[in-house]
Amino acid sequence: MSGALADRERRKLEIVERARSKPARFSDPRVTLAHGAGGRASRAIVEGLLVPALGSATLAELDDAAPVPGTDGCLLITTDTYVVRPIRFPGGSIGELAVNGTVNDLAVTGARALALSLSLVLEEGLDADSLRSEAEAIAAAAEAAGVEVVAGDCKVVERGRADEMYVCTAGVGARDPRARLSATSIEPGDRILLSGPIGDHGTAIMLARGEFDLAADVRSDTRSLWPAADALLGSAGPALRCMRDATRGGVASVLNELARASGVSMRVLEAALPVRPPVAGAAELLGIDPMHIANEGTLVAFVAPDAAADALRAMREAPGCEEAVEIGEASAEDPGMVLVETPFGGHRVMDELVGDPLPRIC
Amino acid sequence: MSGALADRERRKLEIVERARSKPARFSDPRVTLAHGAGGRASRAIVEGLLVPALGSATLAELDDAAPVPGTDGCLLITTDTYVVRPIRFPGGSIGELAVNGTVNDLAVTGARALALSLSLVLEEGLDADSLRSEAEAIAAAAEAAGVEVVAGDCKVVERGRADEMYVCTAGVGARDPRARLSATSIEPGDRILLSGPIGDHGTAIMLARGEFDLAADVRSDTRSLWPAADALLGSAGPALRCMRDATRGGVASVLNELARASGVSMRVLEAALPVRPPVAGAAELLGIDPMHIANEGTLVAFVAPDAAADALRAMREAPGCEEAVEIGEASAEDPGMVLVETPFGGHRVMDELVGDPLPRIC
Repeated sequence: MSGALADRERRKLEIVERARSKPARFSDPRVTLAHGAGGRASRAIVEGLLVPALGSATLAELDDAAPVPGTDGCLLITTDTYVVRPIRFPGGSIGELAVNGTVNDLAVTGARALALSLSLVLEEGLDADSLRSEAEAIAAAAEAAGVEVVAGDCKVVERGRADEMYVCTAGVGARDPRARLSATSIEPGDRILLSGPIGDHGTAIMLARGEFDLAADVRSDTRSLWPAADALLGSAGPALRCMRDATRGGVASVLNELARASGVSMRVLEAALPVRPPVAGAAELLGIDPMHIANEGTLVAFVAPDAAADALRAMREAPGCEEAVEIGEASAEDPGMVLVETPFGGHRVMDELVGDPLPRIC
Repeated sequence: MSGALADRERRKLEIVERARSKPARFSDPRVTLAHGAGGRASRAIVEGLLVPALGSATLAELDDAAPVPGTDGCLLITTDTYVVRPIRFPGGSIGELAVNGTVNDLAVTGARALALSLSLVLEEGLDADSLRSEAEAIAAAAEAAGVEVVAGDCKVVERGRADEMYVCTAGVGARDPRARLSATSIEPGDRILLSGPIGDHGTAIMLARGEFDLAADVRSDTRSLWPAADALLGSAGPALRCMRDATRGGVASVLNELARASGVSMRVLEAALPVRPPVAGAAELLGIDPMHIANEGTLVAFVAPDAAADALRAMREAPGCEEAVEIGEASAEDPGMVLVETPFGGHRVMDELVGDPLPRIC
């Protein structure tokens, strides 16, 4: 190993070690909305309180989906609860989100969803037609994603104790034999691919709430990402290092997490980031970066340099991924950091989300 | 086949056919608390609205757990959300319920839990110590049940939009090769076994709420029922027809459901029903029958007559099942009905729960 390479390896190990030995700490006396936002506070409650108390080694991996013990790693399980408000918004609804979100957590772990469970918490007084329409949205999303809802539960809470409904889905998926994915496998030079424009989902929700005096046609990007994952696995095989769907906390949180896990930095070209004009406008109004806004059908993939161009072409064939782009690459410099290079040659540090500018987004 | 037997078979098919062709209908304009109580209204919302809208044949079976497609029926999945209030009560807490409830839904389907997922909805302002203590309760219950929490999610909603926390668990289990269980397999003459006293959980919750001027030491029966299921499977094998955990809606709802599904009646000896005195007292005060009160660690099992005595002895070895008893038997007369025989030789019809005398019990 050359001196420079050995040096890099040592630096990488150091940063990975530091990230592992210093998990986020939870020192707040009470839970706040920021703890559910998917950024630094979420990490604190999960890594600093829940995982240590639950004491599960598998859970501590904090992957989007986890292997089911006793299945030789062939089956994975994941879960999510959706508390989005309003429950219907341009481009989707809570039921559709609940199906796609769970299918996507499996997809980015390299697993095709086999079965979903569905657990509803309904607010007393909920209109029967609303419930029927969400059940139909769930059925349609499940059919589109090629998965069946096989088990369910339904609870009712008093008026005011929920907002129409909360929806919890869990999913079991079969690991694809082509998948060799790991959050720690990203190498300097690997290309960062993005499946489409960012910030659509969070912006659509914000506009649907009518809290801002802004009219724009922005629709949630909620969709199954299995076709995109399937295309990437088929094109790149083992050259596909890792995938993540950029939900709460946005693309910035995903890149930060993986930069820490793999001991690399992420160099993102600002000019390459696809952001629709109304999303950019809303983000500016809110004073947040589109990279921090939640998506519900957009993934980030890391592919070895030689395989990146073909992988990108393959992903663009998947529905909703026609605008997929390469946005940057991993680098050995500044390990653990995410750096956005501006069109003028400068760069800024893109940290993970702090606080919760857009609560209850999913 | 003798004339009488053929007659009985025809009658049985008729009642099963009627139960299947006339599922409960949902005609209410809005969701009410009774729709979450586990009785007739719950059946209406599930069979009359959710299942038809979701359109899944597997879901339509309405078993406690469902086979995961693509696993040759070897793996089962189930889910439940817990919205019990208060979240802590004598004998347990919401976290413990969430683990045991999901483990038990698998156990009564003849499956040993392999993995759990855990999804939390936290109320803004929740005390960090409360959260930590629930996470520890979940870990302890999972360890006691021999299952690992491998995947999780955590959302936060505004103050007042939940009661401290709601907890959703899903579980994947491996079907035990000894299990030949089916809700339609109960035959006249089969013995009805009960794993312990009824009504403890619902009564403990009611007393913990302090809504009644009644002081009594009643503790929830929350526990893993896998040891009891394991003992029954080991002792009775294929002579074990069916098991159910008698949660929302109580023993009465389970017996009614299975009487309809198998086209038999259930004859229960009132004198044989184990009800602790404070539970009997609270039930009388509330004007409900202990058979309608929820349990969280009590199962009903149906065993062929020849195997029943041994099965009962085996079940009594399982922790918490020392007071297991035989409470009656299935009969060919009055198919679809549950009849409780009083000590004076009369009998009364025990219908499923109507309305919700004890909301938010689990």
